Amino acid sequence: MFGEKQILLIPGPTPVPPRVLRAMCRPMINHRGPEYESFFEQLLSKLKSVFVTDGDVIIFPASGTGAMEAAVANLLSPGDAVLMASVGHFGDRFADIARAFGADVKLLSFPWGKAVDVEEVEKEFKSARKPYRALLVTHNETSTGVTNPIKLLAAVARENEALIIVDAISSLGAIELPMDDWGVDVVIGGSQKGLMTPPGLSFVALNERAWAAVEQAKMPRYYWDFKLHKHYMERHQNPYTPALPLLFALDEALNMLFEDGLENVFARHERMKRIVRDGVREIGFGLGLLADEDVASNTVTGITIPEGVDGNAVVRRLREEHNVVVAGGMDHMRGKMIRIGHVGWVHENDLHIALYALREVITSLIK
Amino acid sequence: MFGEKQILLIPGPTPVPPRVLRAMCRPMINHRGPEYESFFEQLLSKLKSVFVTDGDVIIFPASGTGAMEAAVANLLSPGDAVLMASVGHFGDRFADIARAFGADVKLLSFPWGKAVDVEEVEKEFKSARKPYRALLVTHNETSTGVTNPIKLLAAVARENEALIIVDAISSLGAIELPMDDWGVDVVIGGSQKGLMTPPGLSFVALNERAWAAVEQAKMPRYYWDFKLHKHYMERHQNPYTPALPLLFALDEALNMLFEDGLENVFARHERMKRIVRDGVREIGFGLGLLADEDVASNTVTGITIPEGVDGNAVVRRLREEHNVVVAGGMDHMRGKMIRIGHVGWVHENDLHIALYALREVITSLIK
Repeated sequence: MFGEKQILLIPGPTPVPPRVLRAMCRPMINHRGPEYESFFEQLLSKLKSVFVTDGDVIIFPASGTGAMEAAVANLLSPGDAVLMASVGHFGDRFADIARAFGADVKLLSFPWGKAVDVEEVEKEFKSARKPYRALLVTHNETSTGVTNPIKLLAAVARENEALIIVDAISSLGAIELPMDDWGVDVVIGGSQKGLMTPPGLSFVALNERAWAAVEQAKMPRYYWDFKLHKHYMERHQNPYTPALPLLFALDEALNMLFEDGLENVFARHERMKRIVRDGVREIGFGLGLLADEDVASNTVTGITIPEGVDGNAVVRRLREEHNVVVAGGMDHMRGKMIRIGHVGWVHENDLHIALYALREVITSLIK
Repeated sequence: MFGEKQILLIPGPTPVPPRVLRAMCRPMINHRGPEYESFFEQLLSKLKSVFVTDGDVIIFPASGTGAMEAAVANLLSPGDAVLMASVGHFGDRFADIARAFGADVKLLSFPWGKAVDVEEVEKEFKSARKPYRALLVTHNETSTGVTNPIKLLAAVARENEALIIVDAISSLGAIELPMDDWGVDVVIGGSQKGLMTPPGLSFVALNERAWAAVEQAKMPRYYWDFKLHKHYMERHQNPYTPALPLLFALDEALNMLFEDGLENVFARHERMKRIVRDGVREIGFGLGLLADEDVASNTVTGITIPEGVDGNAVVRRLREEHNVVVAGGMDHMRGKMIRIGHVGWVHENDLHIALYALREVITSLIK
């Protein structure tokens, strides 16, 4: 009976406002007709405001991983030296994608819970046997709940004449990342996190420097081909059938974000982080906060579970006994942590309930 | 006022039943949780009935072109000789994708309106300088309205120890294609045509022979990686976030198709083809039927426009004056033909209206 009243606090897909869900109920239209063209043109202009860019934004009917692959396939050539600064699971995935396409990837890993150390990256650029063509980095690492210092890293990349390609899937529209101001060349986003839209759309935003790299890049591509998309975008169309209901949903969700104001949305996410971190400290009972305080993410909090308690049991009991859905740990942290997502259409109330439920579950498991 | 009462008769996206639209309004769920797992397991089993296969079906959050790329990237290696039997725009696109990934593509083209000539394909196999690893072919060519003889082509491919990879995007669920019975190795489908679901999902169904080819194939892949998907599918999950609302919609649309019975659905599409072709002949006025009678598609009819009349004007006036939306011609047939889609949730009534409107428009343009 209360399935649809679940409190969904995973770091994506995030809760979608009913207003946005309803926007999907619009009948199909011709994606080559005038109605679509004017809709699409306006949607793209709204989306550019979210990326804070005068560059191009390409929308793919695809999950976020697809846009990561698109960035690799359009910006690099086989054999290119690429530096991946990884702080967790999704950084490692980005490296896997680049490797699958033949890039020569140097994986510079930092411990889970830490951010990228900018000095280490600088050192790596200096000591590289061949110049890195690109620095790949995750803005907000969903597996740990850490936000990386993109502005500083962009400066390092620029000094070293490398592109900086940023996976901002779990931060876009929730944590500040003004790409043009910060000199970020490529930003990757997804629909199902801060943008309060269902999963199935992803984005690549790119500047002139990135477009120049596209001209050199030799990795094979068709579905993800930026130039093919650009060609159609000039006519306010897509190279192939777009995922209409998701675009209708995105449009409505962007309207909602602008009604609140992006600055206020960012501030709410910062408040939500504080509520969760303060709440976890207050519960105590050996619960820990994985991320260092100064780099803790505003959209997801990684909470370590005391030894002897099964993190997956915590997740299960929160769901079964309290109708609160959080995520477990990934990779080597499976069963050792839980992750509370506080991104998108999440209200402070949801977090107070989750913290109450977490206290109940932990208390009963520790006893 | 009547925008949402448009009669949408393009060959995709096709009209989506309100029941299916409403299915998308379900709140998001955890794609790593037990609810999703049981939903996904059942959905896959329904989808297999549509492909009429005991093999695997992989669902991609992507447009149909993505599944075409997935087939190429997972089944072939750079330099592989591939025979593309093309009868129009989408056959040519399939060749472009294979070429983009480094396949050595022989494009065997047949005139627009004709089907693939099986004997020509046999001859090409015999005279090839190096053996073809795969035969690529479109089941139902959307740009012309022609259905190819897949059963015969599958037999030719098998005799020549080549895989047969069939793009059935605009026929799946509307025109018979029992892949296991016919010995088809790989079938590609999309959500937005016969399956009465919005665009944004595509499928690849594959048999054991295809899986063996996957083991040999060396083209780069990550997002489309069949083995990665298989690994997750065994746990009723996906490697990355699935496009939940589209999956909910697909599930409901499949329920509707099974309620009607696939045989009846196929028969309805055959009837719709006859209504359109008979209707066009009855209108006369120099309108022509592009496809040969015996290979004319049950899902889309290409209608040539008499010289001196602009096909795009016909499309525009049907939309503006009659609220009937059809497609224009592609490539060299732009402005010279229109295409009426009769696929998915289309009722005979819709076609009677379209034919009435077409007569009105043609009469007034010819005068």
